[in-house]
Amino acid sequence: MSLVQTTVVTGTGDSIIAVAMKLPTDPAENLAALIRCPSVTPTEGGALSALETMLKPLGFAVDRPTFSEDGTPDVENLYARRSGNGPHLMFAGHTDVVPIGDEAAWKHPPFSAAIDNGEMYGRGAVDMKGGIACFIAAVARHVEAHGGPKGSISLLITGDEEGPSINGTVKLLEWAASRGEKWDASLVGEPTNPDALGDMIKIGRRGSISATITVNGRQGHAAYPHLADNPVRGLMTLVDALLNPVFDKGTKDFQPSNLEVTTFDVGNPATNVIPAKATASFNIRFNDSWTAETLQAEIHNRLDKASGRKKYRKGRKEPVEFELVWRDRPSHVFLTRNDKLIDALAGSIKRVTGRKPKLSTTGGTSDARFIKDYCPVVEFGLVGKTMHMVDERVPLAELKQLTQVYQQFLADWFG
Amino acid sequence: MSLVQTTVVTGTGDSIIAVAMKLPTDPAENLAALIRCPSVTPTEGGALSALETMLKPLGFAVDRPTFSEDGTPDVENLYARRSGNGPHLMFAGHTDVVPIGDEAAWKHPPFSAAIDNGEMYGRGAVDMKGGIACFIAAVARHVEAHGGPKGSISLLITGDEEGPSINGTVKLLEWAASRGEKWDASLVGEPTNPDALGDMIKIGRRGSISATITVNGRQGHAAYPHLADNPVRGLMTLVDALLNPVFDKGTKDFQPSNLEVTTFDVGNPATNVIPAKATASFNIRFNDSWTAETLQAEIHNRLDKASGRKKYRKGRKEPVEFELVWRDRPSHVFLTRNDKLIDALAGSIKRVTGRKPKLSTTGGTSDARFIKDYCPVVEFGLVGKTMHMVDERVPLAELKQLTQVYQQFLADWFG
Repeated sequence: MSLVQTTVVTGTGDSIIAVAMKLPTDPAENLAALIRCPSVTPTEGGALSALETMLKPLGFAVDRPTFSEDGTPDVENLYARRSGNGPHLMFAGHTDVVPIGDEAAWKHPPFSAAIDNGEMYGRGAVDMKGGIACFIAAVARHVEAHGGPKGSISLLITGDEEGPSINGTVKLLEWAASRGEKWDASLVGEPTNPDALGDMIKIGRRGSISATITVNGRQGHAAYPHLADNPVRGLMTLVDALLNPVFDKGTKDFQPSNLEVTTFDVGNPATNVIPAKATASFNIRFNDSWTAETLQAEIHNRLDKASGRKKYRKGRKEPVEFELVWRDRPSHVFLTRNDKLIDALAGSIKRVTGRKPKLSTTGGTSDARFIKDYCPVVEFGLVGKTMHMVDERVPLAELKQLTQVYQQFLADWFG
Repeated sequence: MSLVQTTVVTGTGDSIIAVAMKLPTDPAENLAALIRCPSVTPTEGGALSALETMLKPLGFAVDRPTFSEDGTPDVENLYARRSGNGPHLMFAGHTDVVPIGDEAAWKHPPFSAAIDNGEMYGRGAVDMKGGIACFIAAVARHVEAHGGPKGSISLLITGDEEGPSINGTVKLLEWAASRGEKWDASLVGEPTNPDALGDMIKIGRRGSISATITVNGRQGHAAYPHLADNPVRGLMTLVDALLNPVFDKGTKDFQPSNLEVTTFDVGNPATNVIPAKATASFNIRFNDSWTAETLQAEIHNRLDKASGRKKYRKGRKEPVEFELVWRDRPSHVFLTRNDKLIDALAGSIKRVTGRKPKLSTTGGTSDARFIKDYCPVVEFGLVGKTMHMVDERVPLAELKQLTQVYQQFLADWFG
């Protein structure tokens, strides 16, 4: 918006010119620039370059390390720090986005940042280029108004949050910490509000574990069940024991742990054949009654007991033969208790939106599960309704309000 | 084995040659020729041609009608008749076989007819190319020794017994009957013996019905189960009600009715996604406590009741939304009572094997359920242990003995 106090020297070929730059104080302009970069995981798509262009005039030192690992694509990340005398706040997020789905179903092209009826359309508008755009605008306004906060601000931005999360936040944290970086608190800009800005701060997350069970039976003719061993009967017996009883009734800070059977497959097209094999996979979101390890032990225990049951297997004496394979890495449960951080954020939200946010631990995992090993972390961003959907979009008014919340938070937390 | 009294004129291109043919008196040779034809339903695979080659020298007139119906593959069938003065015996069977399953798991290739330790390996060895091979050998020996029986013999062979059974025996019977064919009795060569040749004659069969249940849920993120509706929970609830309680405890002539879940499929690869749809198919073999219609009503009743249960669905109030589609045509239950037929067969078995066969109604359906509408029908064939399994195989000694039983039966029934 405003032409300002920063002069940047930029060179293209032989010509060198000095230009006056405006600071990135407008969240809608920031977001439009980011949406126009097609940064579907693991592609950088220009999004980190766009961020660098916004951050440099604000006095940030920018690093863009690329991480690699066998079997996964290389991913570029960004770490930017503006140093000062005082506490160190880290803002964390990601510029990668999920695929666009059916492009023809979009009202406006998914990388166009088209504005229609006061809303900006585009993949990542909500999850979570919008949160980054607002935070940068808030910092720019703080710089413009007060020369910036007294402490240090850093942005830890990955391009691998929607993907396997192997070459992203985990490695970026390790990389920064190995260079001596230390943080006093972290704010993650993921969309946290179910319905209206100000509804909800996330102060923790449930853990998550996933596994696949395979039951090997004995194939045979449906008319001679005594000569075969139907693995569906065995797998039903095991899954029944996972679904009942429920694991717990929830705790003071968390909702009940929950198991969902995500798939159950046999793949037998013949109506007269008892199949040889059946598999099922499940995912459990668990609360602080458990650790990943105690819950895995409970699962093994339930399956071992159930394997001897005859429930769906009539007179069979031999136990169900099964194999259990844990999938992905477990996501650990965590809860942040830091009054300064939570009070500053909740207070800023109340002042700007008039809403008293719920301190919640619901929903999916986020990269906060990695950050919590380094410093207290909370999450607050836009309204999540359209994330991952066709016609993902954000009202311009909401961008403005979130920028004000972040501005207030910077003032309060540093102040 | 023996070079014989039949001369066949065969032509390829311009050359016409007359060759002396040997009669198909060796059941192992007959079976090897049939196994080498990969006649997985609905493919003819050369199997009916191989039969024709065996039957023509024995004086059979051979027809090979192909039947069609919308939505099913065309299937070729064979009807062969050797006419004489006297009663008419029909031997019925099928040359189609079930799929081979995991080829790598076979000790010998499934269409190789390899002989190992006195056993011949191959898909269809037992079910039921072996029975056909023995019957043809028995007829060939009868022709060789006595010039054939006084009456008429026909073979009614389908290529659609293991599949939908739409373009097979039903139409072949109608086709033959419409040409004036009438039969006094029928012998089906399906494998009937549980352990040793001579154990069991089948004099009736249970009925069979099959269906597929589809449950439509609502897709969603595994971390937000309240926004989704996992169809696996709904389908588990329904299947549970089909498996418990059992339908009956059996009757004087029949064993208990039994349900097997033949497949259960979701096909969702993502560990964090609650799927949209789940399907399961089941097959019920039922006794004379039921008709197909009363049992279908019982199934509808159980599903309707169960759809309101919360067992795996926690607090959900809305019933499970499901769709039930009956598959194939129901197979009706039947029982044959014909002393001449049963006594001739049981007597032959006793004389050759020393065993007094049990008169049974156990096991799968067979095309006898269609034949019983035309003439009295019984079934006797090989030992069924390995049918439909990997490494399906038959001892050569058993082929020899079954051929002797059929030979004795031809002599007794026609005599």
